[in-house]
Amino acid sequence: MFDQTDIQMMQHALSLARLGRFSTSPNPRVGCVIAQGGQIVGQGFHIRAGGPHAEVHALRQAGDFAVGATAYVTLEPCSHYGRTPPCAEALIQSGIKRVVAAMTDPNPLVAGNGLAMLRAAGIETRSGLLEHEARTLNRGFLSRIERQRPFVKLKCAASLDGKTALSDGRSQWITGDAAREDVQILRAESCAVLTGIGTVLADNPRLTVRSFPTLRQPARIILDSRLQTPPDCHLITDTAAPTLIATLIDDPERHTPYLQQPHVRIIRPSENAAGQIDLADLCRILAQQGIGELMIEAGATLNGAWLQSGLVDEIVYYQSAKILGNPARTPFALNEQPQALAAPAAWHSLSVEILGNDIKWVLARADSAA
Amino acid sequence: MFDQTDIQMMQHALSLARLGRFSTSPNPRVGCVIAQGGQIVGQGFHIRAGGPHAEVHALRQAGDFAVGATAYVTLEPCSHYGRTPPCAEALIQSGIKRVVAAMTDPNPLVAGNGLAMLRAAGIETRSGLLEHEARTLNRGFLSRIERQRPFVKLKCAASLDGKTALSDGRSQWITGDAAREDVQILRAESCAVLTGIGTVLADNPRLTVRSFPTLRQPARIILDSRLQTPPDCHLITDTAAPTLIATLIDDPERHTPYLQQPHVRIIRPSENAAGQIDLADLCRILAQQGIGELMIEAGATLNGAWLQSGLVDEIVYYQSAKILGNPARTPFALNEQPQALAAPAAWHSLSVEILGNDIKWVLARADSAA
Repeated sequence: MFDQTDIQMMQHALSLARLGRFSTSPNPRVGCVIAQGGQIVGQGFHIRAGGPHAEVHALRQAGDFAVGATAYVTLEPCSHYGRTPPCAEALIQSGIKRVVAAMTDPNPLVAGNGLAMLRAAGIETRSGLLEHEARTLNRGFLSRIERQRPFVKLKCAASLDGKTALSDGRSQWITGDAAREDVQILRAESCAVLTGIGTVLADNPRLTVRSFPTLRQPARIILDSRLQTPPDCHLITDTAAPTLIATLIDDPERHTPYLQQPHVRIIRPSENAAGQIDLADLCRILAQQGIGELMIEAGATLNGAWLQSGLVDEIVYYQSAKILGNPARTPFALNEQPQALAAPAAWHSLSVEILGNDIKWVLARADSAA
Repeated sequence: MFDQTDIQMMQHALSLARLGRFSTSPNPRVGCVIAQGGQIVGQGFHIRAGGPHAEVHALRQAGDFAVGATAYVTLEPCSHYGRTPPCAEALIQSGIKRVVAAMTDPNPLVAGNGLAMLRAAGIETRSGLLEHEARTLNRGFLSRIERQRPFVKLKCAASLDGKTALSDGRSQWITGDAAREDVQILRAESCAVLTGIGTVLADNPRLTVRSFPTLRQPARIILDSRLQTPPDCHLITDTAAPTLIATLIDDPERHTPYLQQPHVRIIRPSENAAGQIDLADLCRILAQQGIGELMIEAGATLNGAWLQSGLVDEIVYYQSAKILGNPARTPFALNEQPQALAAPAAWHSLSVEILGNDIKWVLARADSAA
């Protein structure tokens, strides 16, 4: 069904799609290659929401060479009028003969309609080439559409002996430059970065991508059930990216000081039995707000709550070659879990590498549906 | 000075030498290739102490082809009568024209005399080809000769959050099959495996290599300052390998129950200011006993003491994808080290890899002379 040329062209389309990994949110990352046999005549990728889709860039480049050609797309072409006209329509008008998609678009507005439109116009269509790679590329978008919650990645940094800070809370420079630079990439790939009020009060972070230029900054989310965020903290005064405060406080007067800043919004997830923000409900709201890939950068207490919630899909664990000793602080505040000794690991090791003198270890939830 | 053929032949000699990594102790691992240009005419490696050296195996295979050939040896040929006649003499008699050594032998009985004997007989000699690789291969032997102490590698296994056991001490199966199998290889490569009396009393280990056949078992060492080793524990009753008890007790009557076993010896290192065994003095004694590569497999207290001593050259850190939570036990009992936050890491990340679902992280002391 697919030959070697098909595979190579789709790999190329996937690598084009990855060029949009810092900028397409909330849209998916999509690449398109148009080829006459082994000859590429057009290529493109989606750069940012509101701009042309990948197919449009590729068709413009191909011009008349599109007639009789094959189009490779990493996601089913859209069939609906959104901010741009449907790509299926553009492909039909271009004279394309065959369309190969890596996967269908689960977006209910598309969901097979794009391919159906093409077939109705006499174009040969195929789907499922390198589908796993295409799904991984858009795991945030897919989680938002299919699970109505973001794909959640939890980042933490610890010493060799699993400590994140001295007992007095000092934690600067556990890891080195290469690991900190890598964290900037993780942020840039995320739709939003979430932290807790404890971290805001202790460190006053900005949570923006600063080590390289990017077309879009991830939104910042503060988990602040009692609404203690200082109105003069960086996340409120720095307008470089949207800030969402998730709180249980519903008094409009207390919201006012924050909402004077146009980049700040307040969301009100429900309260769980422990009197804290219900993380599952928070995730539901964030997905509705277009947040597909969510990064947690928090302290031990909030990290522990996220792990306990079962909502974390991936752990990105940076570890330095330093030994902090006891009684330095640990990365997760969790009750002891004796069942973990006997049970198969809840986490699956995806990759590990040396970054500078630190290591980066990526783990996926063993039962993750993503 | 060395051409591509020289490099290839020495790489081959090094890979031969590695075949002896489980069996040559206390001797070094040595390989030898004899070649006429690019044609190998003889090859061999040292298998075990008392048996023929690598050069003898290779010369036997080469026979008359040795005349005019080049011999590649990973360590300078010996010049002294030990359990076997000097290899330098055998090389001279064979008609070899040129000898390339990866490194000179620091053993005071050789120390350049082997190469000098060859030169005196009109043979061209060169040394220093792939010397770093050759030194790494024999880091235990070299440490014993050059530093009068073993190369010390400390192995530990912990969970993702840096815990080694539950708070009640249970620690079975933190890591999986692949990591435990790898530990057997680490043991087999060691001259001796050391543990503390705490581990002996709690786990009654054998510390032998059991998952694959090996020509030699590493010696077992118990750090037992107060001589509390039960005479019926496996390390005393199992005669598969020598057992050394290091103790501060000098009462011969208390030694007697152990010394009835011919495989058991008692050593008496000096006492440090804290009333414990002085680890530096212990290392001096172990080197005298022919122990070059020493593996520590101990609990948190002894691990902490070894790290504090500055005698550990390498940490082999297995980490599982399990999270044990608090207040589970940590791998090193150490006072908090605030200087570690600011200082460059004392450890250098050498390699990291996934083993099964665990990771194996190897770290060298940043200032290690080995």
